[in-house]
Amino acid sequence: MPSVSDRLELIRYSPIRQIAALLDRSRSKRSIISFGGGAPSLPPPKEILEEISRLLNDETVRAVGYCGTKGLPELRELISEDIERYFGTYYDPNSEIIITEGATEGILLALFSILNKNDEVILIDPTYVGFSEPIKLAGGRVKHIPALVKRGYQPRVEDLEASLTSRTKAFILLSPDNPTGRIISREFVKALVDLAVDRDFWIIYDATYKHIVYEGENVWVPGFPGAMERTIVVNTFSKEASIPGLRLGYTLAPKEIIEAMEKLKQYTSLAPNTLGQYALMKFYQDGVKDRYLKEVVLPTYKRRRDLMGELLRKYLPEAETVKPQGAFYYFVDIRPYLERMGRDDKEFANRLFYRKEVVVIPGAFFGEMGIGHVRMTFVSEPEERIKEGIERIGEFIFSYAI
Amino acid sequence: MPSVSDRLELIRYSPIRQIAALLDRSRSKRSIISFGGGAPSLPPPKEILEEISRLLNDETVRAVGYCGTKGLPELRELISEDIERYFGTYYDPNSEIIITEGATEGILLALFSILNKNDEVILIDPTYVGFSEPIKLAGGRVKHIPALVKRGYQPRVEDLEASLTSRTKAFILLSPDNPTGRIISREFVKALVDLAVDRDFWIIYDATYKHIVYEGENVWVPGFPGAMERTIVVNTFSKEASIPGLRLGYTLAPKEIIEAMEKLKQYTSLAPNTLGQYALMKFYQDGVKDRYLKEVVLPTYKRRRDLMGELLRKYLPEAETVKPQGAFYYFVDIRPYLERMGRDDKEFANRLFYRKEVVVIPGAFFGEMGIGHVRMTFVSEPEERIKEGIERIGEFIFSYAI
Repeated sequence: MPSVSDRLELIRYSPIRQIAALLDRSRSKRSIISFGGGAPSLPPPKEILEEISRLLNDETVRAVGYCGTKGLPELRELISEDIERYFGTYYDPNSEIIITEGATEGILLALFSILNKNDEVILIDPTYVGFSEPIKLAGGRVKHIPALVKRGYQPRVEDLEASLTSRTKAFILLSPDNPTGRIISREFVKALVDLAVDRDFWIIYDATYKHIVYEGENVWVPGFPGAMERTIVVNTFSKEASIPGLRLGYTLAPKEIIEAMEKLKQYTSLAPNTLGQYALMKFYQDGVKDRYLKEVVLPTYKRRRDLMGELLRKYLPEAETVKPQGAFYYFVDIRPYLERMGRDDKEFANRLFYRKEVVVIPGAFFGEMGIGHVRMTFVSEPEERIKEGIERIGEFIFSYAI
Repeated sequence: MPSVSDRLELIRYSPIRQIAALLDRSRSKRSIISFGGGAPSLPPPKEILEEISRLLNDETVRAVGYCGTKGLPELRELISEDIERYFGTYYDPNSEIIITEGATEGILLALFSILNKNDEVILIDPTYVGFSEPIKLAGGRVKHIPALVKRGYQPRVEDLEASLTSRTKAFILLSPDNPTGRIISREFVKALVDLAVDRDFWIIYDATYKHIVYEGENVWVPGFPGAMERTIVVNTFSKEASIPGLRLGYTLAPKEIIEAMEKLKQYTSLAPNTLGQYALMKFYQDGVKDRYLKEVVLPTYKRRRDLMGELLRKYLPEAETVKPQGAFYYFVDIRPYLERMGRDDKEFANRLFYRKEVVVIPGAFFGEMGIGHVRMTFVSEPEERIKEGIERIGEFIFSYAI
């Protein structure tokens, strides 16, 4: 067999995806409780689903045909109106919006659009595993600044300043955050934007959880003076419309970047899923989105978040965490338990799965600062199963205490 | 604004995609007759569409949830059985098959899996525009061997031999071919496989049109002795199931390559469209695929092919072409007309569109050997519109003759 490319050694296998594959194989096992993935467990708005069926009946060939690489113009128009209404920034639907295969392709195309070899990209540690690997695929180098539980998982401006070099090409900001659930402070964003203007680098703002906010308000990066022309906003429908399996998202950016992303996308996926795009137009009509978020998504997830928080305090009283203001996750510092058990977070997660059939993600997967933590999704299981899952974790820890 | 990556200058904008975007904008204009894209115009099997609606009703959350990066195990099993039944080669559904976003992502991931910087990949000229650009994105270099109308668009073994160097890493073969419709000769494949074994390079076999064969039989590359362990077979559902807008395809390859592709796909698109995958399982059940191909797809396209061939002989008697044995296209050498008109093929296509609202693709887009040709899709329009379109081309040419 001829050889495989050296680039495969640059990147690592996503641990979250390994778990997705594992759960695919054991999908029928009801006894497994997963706090592992980032999947919403609510059905999407029924208007989207009904529209899929209607399209397949009434406009079959159009609904399953190819569309342009940037996606349907009609959907881009609705997105533009929606963003302006929610956040007050206007993106031209023809030149400043592209539809992508979820946020994943948005991040990939954004990075491939801006990075030359050895350009540096600064990430917060811990962070989503899907940033570092595409940076390396695009030829870039990863730098980190820490975010610690004791500072509410907020990064510090002085660390950001210290990490900048002449090769800094971009900073990636995810807010509300995965894995920590924190909303970035306005002060940090203000300083970040000023530095980006001053030192001429890009901000990639991953707004995956922009509508998943339980308290306070998310910080909309392009709204800061000077930010819009140097910010690439990556979005997905997976979380806010609970429809990850359709693989649709969108990116907002200056037209030079959208043009670059379009050119690249011709060779990564050609064009986005047409049927899903037509159906998602319903998300923006007749108040469906507002109603779905306010009446279904946010109250359901908030209840689950509050319950998991309570149970964590009860069954893991020595663990430290920050109550997530948004997104889907608790990021829990369990070092007191790990020390007593003589295990690291990976061994903890492994044994917990095999002994108790509860899935959590080892914090080490999210970066060095995540060592000794676990990420626990609170949206994917209903309340009675959250209760059972945390009880099982409590039993698991207790079994080591004896 | 900070700068854009230099890599954008490496690659070019796909002309076919520009036309897709153009047609997106003028979709309502009935008067435009398109021989441009590669889109099937038939509805997909109704069983697939009905299954989508059923899934959305009965199994909503599962149908629109995430799946593993390689795609649904159940669908991979059906694909494995189907390939063995049709072509006699067995691929392990767990380790040798990955579901992709159409063939586009399959090609991208295959190239990123095998190429190091400056590795050479040999293409036939003319060829599909989606090969050269991802080779360059992956750091590779493109070499060409010619295929001429006077040799039935068959490449020659001596040209292949002459193009090999110590840096040759892969050969890309598309059969049935886009843009020429030719089925590769068994002799060429035999020689190619022997050379690949001898010189240790990969064969990327794009089997997009493997079932779209009107006469004779397609040549199944992995069936040749020694071929399977060095062949990556890229497939799509877009053409054979007439469902391009779902963006689904699959790749068959040795497990080392599938592992590499899976790792990369975690960062290109995360996972394939779940709903579409579940629905496509119906394609492989109860004889749906056989019936659809034999009773709907092949007879319809064959009639259109024969009609377009007849009309070309009548209205463009000096043009040379090869009757396509498979795929969707006539690749027509129109040099006698171009010379008289004092135009090249790009100008011809442009003026034809603006004066007569007929879309054809300039042959130059497919490579240097395509200069002076146009590609004309015969599957996208019904017979009466094929007739009208070719008549308009005849008028257009005649207007220059006076």
